[in-house]
Amino acid sequence: MKFSINRASFVKALNIVQRAISSKTTIPILTGLKIDVSPNHILLTGSNADISIQTTISGDNPDNDLTISDTGSIVLPARFFGKIVKKLPGNELSIEVGDNFQTNINSGNSDFTINGLDANGYPHLPEVNTDNTVDLPAEIFKEVIGQTVIAVSKQESRPILTGVHFTLNQNQLVAVATDSHRLSQRKVDLPKEDDGEYDVVIPGDSLKELSHMLDGEKEQIKMNLSENQVMFNFGVTRFYSRLLEGNYPDTSRLIPNSSVTKVQFSAAYLLAAVERASLLSHESRNNVIKLSIKPNDKVVTITGNSPDVGKVEEDLDPKKVEGEELEISFNPDYMKEALRAFGQIDVEVGFTSALRPFTIVPTDEQEEFIQLITPVRTF
Amino acid sequence: MKFSINRASFVKALNIVQRAISSKTTIPILTGLKIDVSPNHILLTGSNADISIQTTISGDNPDNDLTISDTGSIVLPARFFGKIVKKLPGNELSIEVGDNFQTNINSGNSDFTINGLDANGYPHLPEVNTDNTVDLPAEIFKEVIGQTVIAVSKQESRPILTGVHFTLNQNQLVAVATDSHRLSQRKVDLPKEDDGEYDVVIPGDSLKELSHMLDGEKEQIKMNLSENQVMFNFGVTRFYSRLLEGNYPDTSRLIPNSSVTKVQFSAAYLLAAVERASLLSHESRNNVIKLSIKPNDKVVTITGNSPDVGKVEEDLDPKKVEGEELEISFNPDYMKEALRAFGQIDVEVGFTSALRPFTIVPTDEQEEFIQLITPVRTF
Repeated sequence: MKFSINRASFVKALNIVQRAISSKTTIPILTGLKIDVSPNHILLTGSNADISIQTTISGDNPDNDLTISDTGSIVLPARFFGKIVKKLPGNELSIEVGDNFQTNINSGNSDFTINGLDANGYPHLPEVNTDNTVDLPAEIFKEVIGQTVIAVSKQESRPILTGVHFTLNQNQLVAVATDSHRLSQRKVDLPKEDDGEYDVVIPGDSLKELSHMLDGEKEQIKMNLSENQVMFNFGVTRFYSRLLEGNYPDTSRLIPNSSVTKVQFSAAYLLAAVERASLLSHESRNNVIKLSIKPNDKVVTITGNSPDVGKVEEDLDPKKVEGEELEISFNPDYMKEALRAFGQIDVEVGFTSALRPFTIVPTDEQEEFIQLITPVRTF
Repeated sequence: MKFSINRASFVKALNIVQRAISSKTTIPILTGLKIDVSPNHILLTGSNADISIQTTISGDNPDNDLTISDTGSIVLPARFFGKIVKKLPGNELSIEVGDNFQTNINSGNSDFTINGLDANGYPHLPEVNTDNTVDLPAEIFKEVIGQTVIAVSKQESRPILTGVHFTLNQNQLVAVATDSHRLSQRKVDLPKEDDGEYDVVIPGDSLKELSHMLDGEKEQIKMNLSENQVMFNFGVTRFYSRLLEGNYPDTSRLIPNSSVTKVQFSAAYLLAAVERASLLSHESRNNVIKLSIKPNDKVVTITGNSPDVGKVEEDLDPKKVEGEELEISFNPDYMKEALRAFGQIDVEVGFTSALRPFTIVPTDEQEEFIQLITPVRTF
C-alpha cells in the first residue's frame, strides 16, 4: 500500500472519521483508523461499538492531488497518527506500508515510522440495504435532531428512552423523545411521498454526533434502514448507527388537545427570565420556579426562591394572556432546554391545570413542533 | 448604601476584581465581593490569600451613569452575585442595602433580594508605600512576565523557585526564573534612572493573573513595594500580591559565556520540528529528543523514538551552523516553552558540550533575553 495526497484534504477526511473513534474501547483494533486504498480512491473508516463513519477521498478531485502507487489496507493508531498528520511540515503527505505493517509517513523533511495493525483484523461494517431511501434536506434533519434530542433520557434504567423515536407514514416523518418528565415531538412533511413505513429508535448520542457533522451541510441526507442499523449518507460520507431494540411507548395520548390558560411570549425573552429565576432555584434543594398567571390583570409573574441565598421576582410582559388564573411550579432546566429549541420565534404556552403537563408550541405552525413539561407539585 | 449605575460599566469592573476571588478559600468572607460606596465613586475589592484586586468606578465618567443616594459598604457572595448582574434585563442596575445586610438588586422588571455580609468583617488590604514607584510600559511588563514565568518551578519543595526574581539596579530591571532544569532571564532598560534598589521574588501564579489583566493595556504600569507586598497600579485598578520570603539563589554564574557549537533558526520553524519529534518522545518512558549537529556538512538532524510506537527523523534547515560536531539530548517540553517565548524572531542556540546547559538567545539583542536548558544524559 502506497499513496501520496494533499495533506489538507487528508486531514479534513481524517477529522470526519475520527468522530467515531474512541480511545476507550474494549476492542483494541477500534482505537485505530482503517485506510483502504483502491485503484482510484481512498476509504477511511472509524468505529466504536455504537457508530461507524466512512468517508471517501476520490482521485477524480484534482484538489486531493491523489497518486496511488499500490493498493492495500492498514490500520493505524488513530489518535497518535492524527497528531502526526496535523503537525507535518509539507503540503503533501505520502504513506507507505512496509514489512510487518510498519508504516512510513513522509512530508517535507520529516520522516515518521509507526507500527500499524493488520486490516484483516478490523470488524466488517454492517450491510445496509439502500433500496428504501428516505431523502431529507440536511438542515431540516439537523433541526429535527436538535429539537428532540434534548428530551431523551440520560438514565439507562429504560434504555429505549435514551433514543429518539422516528416514524414515517406516507410522507410525514415524526420524531419523538421523552424522559417521562418532558416530551418533545417534531413533524416534518417530506417533499415526495414514500411507500415504506418505518418505526425505529435511534440512540440520542448517535444523533448528537451526526448533528455536529451536518454543520453547514447544505445537501440532502439519505437515510437507509436495516434490521438493527441505520445508515445516513451525505456527500462522500456514510454514518452508521445501531438501533435501539424494544417497543417505544405510545406517546400520542400524552399530548393534551386543549388548555384553559394560554400565554404568548417571544421564546428568547421568556428564556432570559427563566434563566434569571433559575439562578436562585439552583441554590435550593428542590430546583423549582413558579409562574403566576392572572389573565384579568394581564399579569404573569415568575419567582424563584432559595431560603439560604435570597429570592427573585419578575413581572413579565406577555404578548398575549388569556383563560383562567393559574399558579404552576416546574423545573426551570427543562423549560430552558425547551425554549432554546425554538430560537427567536414566538411561542404559546398552554396550561390545563397546576398538576397536568403543559405544552409549548410555536405561535404559528402549532402542529409542527410541540414540547410538553410535567410540573412539580409544591403543596 | 444605595446607588444606581450603568450595568455594563459595573460588569466590566466586576470582571476585573472577580479574578482575585476564589470559591475555594479557608476564609469564608473572601468568597465575597466588597462594595464600598463613597460620595463620588464606588470601590470594588476581591481577594484571596495571595492576591487582591481593587478597582474604582468614578462618578466623574458620564458613561458610568452613577447616581449615589447613600454611602456605605457591603460584602455580597461574589460568584452568585456576578451571575445575577450579568443576566439582568436592563441597561441600568440599582443596588440597595436594607436591614440585616439584605440587599436588593433591581434592573428592568427583575427584582432580586440576596443575603449580604457585614463589610466590617472583611480583612484590610496591606498598606503599600507609594513613594518609590517603578514605571514601565504595561506591554513590556507583560512581555517580561510571559518570558520568565514559563521557567518557574511547579514544585513546592523549594518555594522560592515558584516565583520570579526581580532586581532593579540603576535603570536596569532584571527578571529571572529557574526550576533548576532550565532558566529564563530578561533584562529591560527603564526610561528614567531610579534611585532605589529592589530585590524581590513575586509568585509566578500572581504574575500570570496580572499578565491576563494587562491584555491590551497600553498605559504605564506602576510598581510599588513594601516589606512583603508588591502593588501594581494601572488605570483605575490596583493589583496586590504577597512576596516570597527567602534568598533567591545566585543565578548569574549559571549562564555560560561562550559556546563551541552554534546554530541559528527561525524560532517558529524550530518549534514546529521539536513539536513533531515530541509526539514520539511523549509515548516513551523517558521523554527525550536528540539533536545531531554536523557543522562541516551543514546538517542538523532531530530524532525522536518510542520503542512501542515508532520513530521520527527530520533534517532541519538551519540559517547558520558553526563550530564543533555535537549530539545532545533534552526534554522537548522545556524546549517548546522556551521557543514559544521568542515568537516569530530568529534565535541562536549555543552549546558547550553534550552534558552542559545550552543557551537560546535572540540572534539580535543577545544580551536582552536568554534561556538556558539542561540536557539529559542518555549514555
